[in-house]
Amino acid sequence: MAKDFSTREENYSQWYNDLVIRADLAENSAVRGCMVIKPYGFAIWEKMQAALDKMFKDTGHVNAYFPIFIPKSFFSREASHVEGFAKECAVVTHYRLKNAPDNKGVVVDEDAKLEEELIVRPTSETIIWDTYKNWIQSYRDLPLLINQWANVVRWEMRTRLFLRTAEFLWQEGHTAHATSEEALNEALTMLDVYATFAEKFMAIPVLKGTKTASERFAGAIETFAIEALMQDGKALQAGTSHFLGQNFAKAFDVKFLNRENQLDFVWATSWGVSTRLLGALIMSHSDDHGLVLPPKLAPTQVVIVPVFKTNEQLGQISEVARKIQSSLQQSGISVKYDDRDTQKPGWKFTEYEFKGVPVRLVLGPRDLEQGTIEVFRRDTLEKDILQVEDIDRKVIHLLDQIQENLYQKAIDFRENNSHMVDTWEEFLQKIEGPGGFLYAHWDGTAETEAKIKEETKATIRVIPLGQPLAEGKCIYSGNPSSQRVIFARAY
Amino acid sequence: MAKDFSTREENYSQWYNDLVIRADLAENSAVRGCMVIKPYGFAIWEKMQAALDKMFKDTGHVNAYFPIFIPKSFFSREASHVEGFAKECAVVTHYRLKNAPDNKGVVVDEDAKLEEELIVRPTSETIIWDTYKNWIQSYRDLPLLINQWANVVRWEMRTRLFLRTAEFLWQEGHTAHATSEEALNEALTMLDVYATFAEKFMAIPVLKGTKTASERFAGAIETFAIEALMQDGKALQAGTSHFLGQNFAKAFDVKFLNRENQLDFVWATSWGVSTRLLGALIMSHSDDHGLVLPPKLAPTQVVIVPVFKTNEQLGQISEVARKIQSSLQQSGISVKYDDRDTQKPGWKFTEYEFKGVPVRLVLGPRDLEQGTIEVFRRDTLEKDILQVEDIDRKVIHLLDQIQENLYQKAIDFRENNSHMVDTWEEFLQKIEGPGGFLYAHWDGTAETEAKIKEETKATIRVIPLGQPLAEGKCIYSGNPSSQRVIFARAY
Repeated sequence: MAKDFSTREENYSQWYNDLVIRADLAENSAVRGCMVIKPYGFAIWEKMQAALDKMFKDTGHVNAYFPIFIPKSFFSREASHVEGFAKECAVVTHYRLKNAPDNKGVVVDEDAKLEEELIVRPTSETIIWDTYKNWIQSYRDLPLLINQWANVVRWEMRTRLFLRTAEFLWQEGHTAHATSEEALNEALTMLDVYATFAEKFMAIPVLKGTKTASERFAGAIETFAIEALMQDGKALQAGTSHFLGQNFAKAFDVKFLNRENQLDFVWATSWGVSTRLLGALIMSHSDDHGLVLPPKLAPTQVVIVPVFKTNEQLGQISEVARKIQSSLQQSGISVKYDDRDTQKPGWKFTEYEFKGVPVRLVLGPRDLEQGTIEVFRRDTLEKDILQVEDIDRKVIHLLDQIQENLYQKAIDFRENNSHMVDTWEEFLQKIEGPGGFLYAHWDGTAETEAKIKEETKATIRVIPLGQPLAEGKCIYSGNPSSQRVIFARAY
Repeated sequence: MAKDFSTREENYSQWYNDLVIRADLAENSAVRGCMVIKPYGFAIWEKMQAALDKMFKDTGHVNAYFPIFIPKSFFSREASHVEGFAKECAVVTHYRLKNAPDNKGVVVDEDAKLEEELIVRPTSETIIWDTYKNWIQSYRDLPLLINQWANVVRWEMRTRLFLRTAEFLWQEGHTAHATSEEALNEALTMLDVYATFAEKFMAIPVLKGTKTASERFAGAIETFAIEALMQDGKALQAGTSHFLGQNFAKAFDVKFLNRENQLDFVWATSWGVSTRLLGALIMSHSDDHGLVLPPKLAPTQVVIVPVFKTNEQLGQISEVARKIQSSLQQSGISVKYDDRDTQKPGWKFTEYEFKGVPVRLVLGPRDLEQGTIEVFRRDTLEKDILQVEDIDRKVIHLLDQIQENLYQKAIDFRENNSHMVDTWEEFLQKIEGPGGFLYAHWDGTAETEAKIKEETKATIRVIPLGQPLAEGKCIYSGNPSSQRVIFARAY
């Protein structure tokens, strides 16, 4: 472990920041709040994109692209949307620069002022529903199931790499439906897609539920979310899916002729996940030795390192190593053979450990003699000497085991950090202490929710879906409650 | 053919515009100059992206992501770059809106003025080289071979869907090298990648060459380009690759310790292709019946249309159709089986013809009896009745034939429209007439180039690579010339 790298216990927040930089995932740019996603970080995002994009297409969605700019007036059309989104944003006011009078650099050309300012999209509901107006006449044009991969900008004051940045990358789905039921189903289907992705690919268990009114997307009737628990006991919202009702259709006058030949407003959903998922991925599995990546999202799943003194040895080792590499590659596993002689094996071990490569294979002269190979797994840091015979099959099996183990560890962690809490004292004790998901009764009022947040910084992460109702008393007000909700401090 | 659809002969420009709209490829948005890329158009772009991305990775490149905003002062660092790029661009001056005093909508919050304006990237050399400064210390950090898929904005006054839009999608490669030779090789390698992509995937033959100084990228030492010829005799620049020398390294102070332990400035290239390629694709192959797509880029490569009167017939046809569909899909062919009963077969034929689906299979009750199937190829509009046996193999072969035929047709067209021109009269006659590529002698001066452009709107598309030198006299000035260059009017 590098000496300039904090441990989680010393300082979790610093550990995260150090990790992102040291593992070459991302860095701050010259533009306040905007990040540079470095090749290694971007390679993980590409794997996420590929998996999600396939899931979107398998559920009938297609991709399209809408403008990055939104006319300022569009935001005012939907009353609550403007409150939520048209505030901290990048505003384009001019379309030309000119040479400075002193000939030193360029200045804004005041003659090139836009009649109406353009906003760099913080989210695209408005421009998309303005477009859908022309695409939808009758129920035959529905449903529209469209997704967009794009960059968006929200002018955040305090930023952290991946978790909160002024510009970030995301996908936003925007669908249009003939009925309320169909739209609601769509929102829930996409919530499930996100949950499946988090669990199967990211190895992160998530809670599914609805947001309270105060945490709802600006313009939504209902916001569904998946929530994950980080190693420091704080929650992270990993994806949201919104049932928008007819709000945007009304704001942009999108009507259709239904099967009964009546004009009606179209029903809508929107849903998105972003590069924030990289933050969740890092914080869920990584340790004091660096990044830990689930095999399904690791850009390099296996690295082979030769240990040699002479070129002759290297030649013999390389022959075996390349055979293993090519047979793993044929099974779709990404394998790097690092035979550089500019770095020592020990340096390489630390490096790949830090970068979270799930499996490391080491081959030395003695291995060749004895027909063995050293296998190291990043998740448990365990080393083993195996017979080299059938090593490809063994490695593939091990990758599955690692994927499963990371998920199970995360499940166990969440279980150990989920608590039924029935008194305010207990609530305070947990929230000020280890954190975690607190299942507690709440009286259903925005006032109580706001006071709890004010006093403890804890928010209601979700009202869980599919949980049996159970009467109880609000931990804060003592008033009756019909269901426990999930509190936590959150990113 | 639809009656609201112009033919190429009537009005080529209108034909193009109609085609883009009618084939559901793209449309203008509510934001001046910005387009919406519709799902069908975007699906073609996704196929292009996938093919190019693979070629980039196969040549050792990785993807990353850099900020959309560039501080205004960055443009002034490289003297010629500022002239070329810091003029017509979107300028962000504020970062907040607030409620209007009259409570009607939102207005710019004048208290939230940026200290330094931010430019929405028109290209990313400046922000990337500012970042590379921290990534490069020694020759061991080189080469850096990085590509980015991104949106960019150039405030164009006259826009046309795909061909010239204020916002467009593209990829931009930015590489850093230890030597001039290596950088120059990289620029040429990527030119070859673009040429291969154009010819093998888009079925468009291209000329490779260097641009004259006046057509060079702002900040480049040498700009290489591929040029294609459209059906109206105008040229279209389909991709550029720039050798940037040490210009950006000097502007952003990017030095490295070379193998001789000396500090030196880093050598650079950049290269890009954009959604403009969709314009080239459409204009190269399409006809008065609509879009024609090369099979390798067609979102749907084969459509199967059943012709039936009864549900029983449909059931029998569907059984055969789905077998063909699944066997083609197993070979990686995208096949749509359109069994909708809301549209008649004739309507479907026209629709898929218009959308450029390369192969249409039609199955009726008589085909089932006789073991036949109707096969229609979009490129030649030829229909054939084949035995249904082995139809998957036949269709795969046909798709290859169509890909090859489109390329050959485009080659023939270019040959018929390329002319050696030796006098000014001939030059005028050709350029005012059918257009095409004119191979002519030029005295090498910017003055002559400018005058020819002024008088004829023709520009030097490229100084061809690998063409033997041959002495001659400039068609305009009569002064000596050592090589023919290629003139054309261009998009």
